[in-house]
Amino acid sequence: MVKESIRVGLLGLGTVGSAVYRLLDEEAENIGGDARGQVEVARIAVRDLSRTRPVSPPPKMMTSRPEDILEDPSIDVVVEVMGGLEPAETLIKGALRRGKNVVTANKDLMAAHGHELLEIARASDLSLRYEAAVAAGVPIISCLSEGLASERIEEIMGIVNGTTNYILCRMTDADESLTGALARAQEHGYAEEDPTSDLSGNDAACKVAIMGSLAFGVPVRRRDVKVQGITGITTEDIRCARKMGHVIKLVGRAWPEEAGIKALVAPHLVPWTHPLAQVKGVDNLVQIHGAAAGPISLAGAGAGGRATSSAIAADLGAIAPDLVSGHNTPRPNRTPSRLAGGGRKEEAAFYLRVVADERPGVLSQMVSIMADHGVGLREVVRLPTGTRGGAWILLVAPIVEDRLWDAVWILEGLTAVRGRITVIRFLPGGSLHQTQTHSSHEPIATTRLGAVETCRLSGHMWSI
Amino acid sequence: MVKESIRVGLLGLGTVGSAVYRLLDEEAENIGGDARGQVEVARIAVRDLSRTRPVSPPPKMMTSRPEDILEDPSIDVVVEVMGGLEPAETLIKGALRRGKNVVTANKDLMAAHGHELLEIARASDLSLRYEAAVAAGVPIISCLSEGLASERIEEIMGIVNGTTNYILCRMTDADESLTGALARAQEHGYAEEDPTSDLSGNDAACKVAIMGSLAFGVPVRRRDVKVQGITGITTEDIRCARKMGHVIKLVGRAWPEEAGIKALVAPHLVPWTHPLAQVKGVDNLVQIHGAAAGPISLAGAGAGGRATSSAIAADLGAIAPDLVSGHNTPRPNRTPSRLAGGGRKEEAAFYLRVVADERPGVLSQMVSIMADHGVGLREVVRLPTGTRGGAWILLVAPIVEDRLWDAVWILEGLTAVRGRITVIRFLPGGSLHQTQTHSSHEPIATTRLGAVETCRLSGHMWSI
Repeated sequence: MVKESIRVGLLGLGTVGSAVYRLLDEEAENIGGDARGQVEVARIAVRDLSRTRPVSPPPKMMTSRPEDILEDPSIDVVVEVMGGLEPAETLIKGALRRGKNVVTANKDLMAAHGHELLEIARASDLSLRYEAAVAAGVPIISCLSEGLASERIEEIMGIVNGTTNYILCRMTDADESLTGALARAQEHGYAEEDPTSDLSGNDAACKVAIMGSLAFGVPVRRRDVKVQGITGITTEDIRCARKMGHVIKLVGRAWPEEAGIKALVAPHLVPWTHPLAQVKGVDNLVQIHGAAAGPISLAGAGAGGRATSSAIAADLGAIAPDLVSGHNTPRPNRTPSRLAGGGRKEEAAFYLRVVADERPGVLSQMVSIMADHGVGLREVVRLPTGTRGGAWILLVAPIVEDRLWDAVWILEGLTAVRGRITVIRFLPGGSLHQTQTHSSHEPIATTRLGAVETCRLSGHMWSI
Repeated sequence: MVKESIRVGLLGLGTVGSAVYRLLDEEAENIGGDARGQVEVARIAVRDLSRTRPVSPPPKMMTSRPEDILEDPSIDVVVEVMGGLEPAETLIKGALRRGKNVVTANKDLMAAHGHELLEIARASDLSLRYEAAVAAGVPIISCLSEGLASERIEEIMGIVNGTTNYILCRMTDADESLTGALARAQEHGYAEEDPTSDLSGNDAACKVAIMGSLAFGVPVRRRDVKVQGITGITTEDIRCARKMGHVIKLVGRAWPEEAGIKALVAPHLVPWTHPLAQVKGVDNLVQIHGAAAGPISLAGAGAGGRATSSAIAADLGAIAPDLVSGHNTPRPNRTPSRLAGGGRKEEAAFYLRVVADERPGVLSQMVSIMADHGVGLREVVRLPTGTRGGAWILLVAPIVEDRLWDAVWILEGLTAVRGRITVIRFLPGGSLHQTQTHSSHEPIATTRLGAVETCRLSGHMWSI
């Protein structure tokens, strides 16, 4: 049987859902390739039929019962753009159980239960595609699962959250506070009313989990990704970074270590010359380090209804030929197939800002705790007393992260230390990793920060 | 029938062929995904069996008769890495005729006869894949044919020749002459002994033809690409560009106009802030402007045996599952499927350097020729007399290219004008295109070029 067109059931009609409807229905001329003129929206399920929306599908296309889509045998593909774990998970499973292919933009769900859902799809010879879940229209999922399918990947790193990148750019370029930059992001529609998932790094962590699973062929789940958000970053940190020739970026990374895939999202000090440092505003950039191909970058708009709907159309286009030709043999799902290779335990250099009273003995107490934990110091600078009190900046020589945290927790227990210590890692490969001596950047002490005390260590590592 | 492995016949064992052999045979652990452990090199055909090579396959694997590969029924896939039009074309046709899938890295052949070869493959339900023909390991072909298959593409532009980019970077950053920079490129192995195909823009034009065919769904052949190389560029041009906030890059571009796809390779003045301006050394970057997804960039190493062999492994990996599962139903070839949309006739601003005697009446003669052809001028500057005589720099207001060339040819006929006029276009979208007034860059006249005469036009277009 040759079908004339692919009938799509749309679950959700928010920003992304409306853009999908518009692209498939009103702007079909903007679709190229296999999906052009072959895909039509047949039914749309929404929670609240009475809500005003930017698009106006015919009322009889709308339903408040998602079952109307799942149980309609004429619907070939379910496009899920509701977001969130439930009821999205139950509905996707229901669609697969009824033999429908699924396209989803749901990063939370794919990061938490993607592995299980892909297994269900594979067992039923169905497609479950999720290009839109990472970096909107930038075809990262397709690159990892198709274009770079034969490449052994050594590391994947990227800026995959536009909101936090916009905020950090404003703090860097316009010297705004985090609160001020966030307000501006909300003003421009770059941040949600509740920005928690972005600021905490959760959104980026979901994307790192999804990319990591594809890149390394083993399930990496959201809960496997260590996360540190940007809420602790101050303009002081950004100025220190600048003095060292770095910018602060929220970077998501994943790479194989001996114990398994290491995945994290954290603020990183990135050298100016690194491609990640060039990423401006709400753009996304992902760098994939291939064993044979070297570093490959993909960049573009990482959010927005239009760009996201483009990724959904790409997935529909990939499913379309199989359905239309009458052989329902979709291409293999993009599931893990590669074994994790490699296995280094990463050492990174760190920047610490410790807000602490300035009185005799405090520094020597801190330094001796560091020494006890085998934490090497490259530079120690006293910043002037600001609104939150004076602070010490400690530059830590490359070290396996866990060892540093032990020392940080003890420091935080000192009575002279106020609040949490800000810990920012240097992107490995930069100047602080290349040599034991400390010469590739000016000491912070000479900066306009106006340090009042400095213990620069004349090019030697200071580990007692 | 389920096959245990994919048997590859390799045509050619030069730099790329040796890297392919090494990756498939010696470094198989660097292969991920579907191709891992399933692909083996069975036979290798070379022109000269006695030549010393960086790899040493078993002698009985080698043959000087390519027919030994074509006629061997146990060989599933032919990998062609000989380069050049013949005998590659005949051998690929022979392989397809005998039911073998083909993977090629041959940009010259795909740019000249790709459309025909893809038709032959499609008619026989075979795969012909060519990821390695453009930008080595950067998966541009896969992105255009899969990840962005549903995107209407408005323009594609990129730096796709590493040799010329390296040379232009040296001229820009180290103030070297073109000859000096070329010598250095050859020293580092970044340029061939005969660099003609790179310097003339031919190599880039082949890649633009291949990408343009995929992006716009109509055959774009090498002969359809207008080409201008970099041999006319001097350090004077580069200094003028810098003064205007631009760098000179050899950019390949393709976009739909009413009369069909317009494709060109030419030196462009690119604003510093544009992603193309950031491309250093032998790297490649391609920017794809999608109607829904916006501009998407792909970047990475665009040459080298290892990176190229990665792209070939990706293509083998894409073919492998179909062969191994015993259904020989390869995925659709990456062939044109999109109709050309859009249809603007591009206007670009131009930079002209005219080496001419400095005597009364010459400038007025030139200006009046420009006016007769409706060519608007934004700025005219006299450069000091150098080794090749003094020169006029003319900045031309945005104009449809053909109209400019008519005027340039007449200028070149003037007795006062010596040699060819250097014509470099501004990348459209930059400052010179946005407004009729001329304020976004400093006049060249104030530069260290030390112009001795200037006719800056106080912000107005000068078209008489």
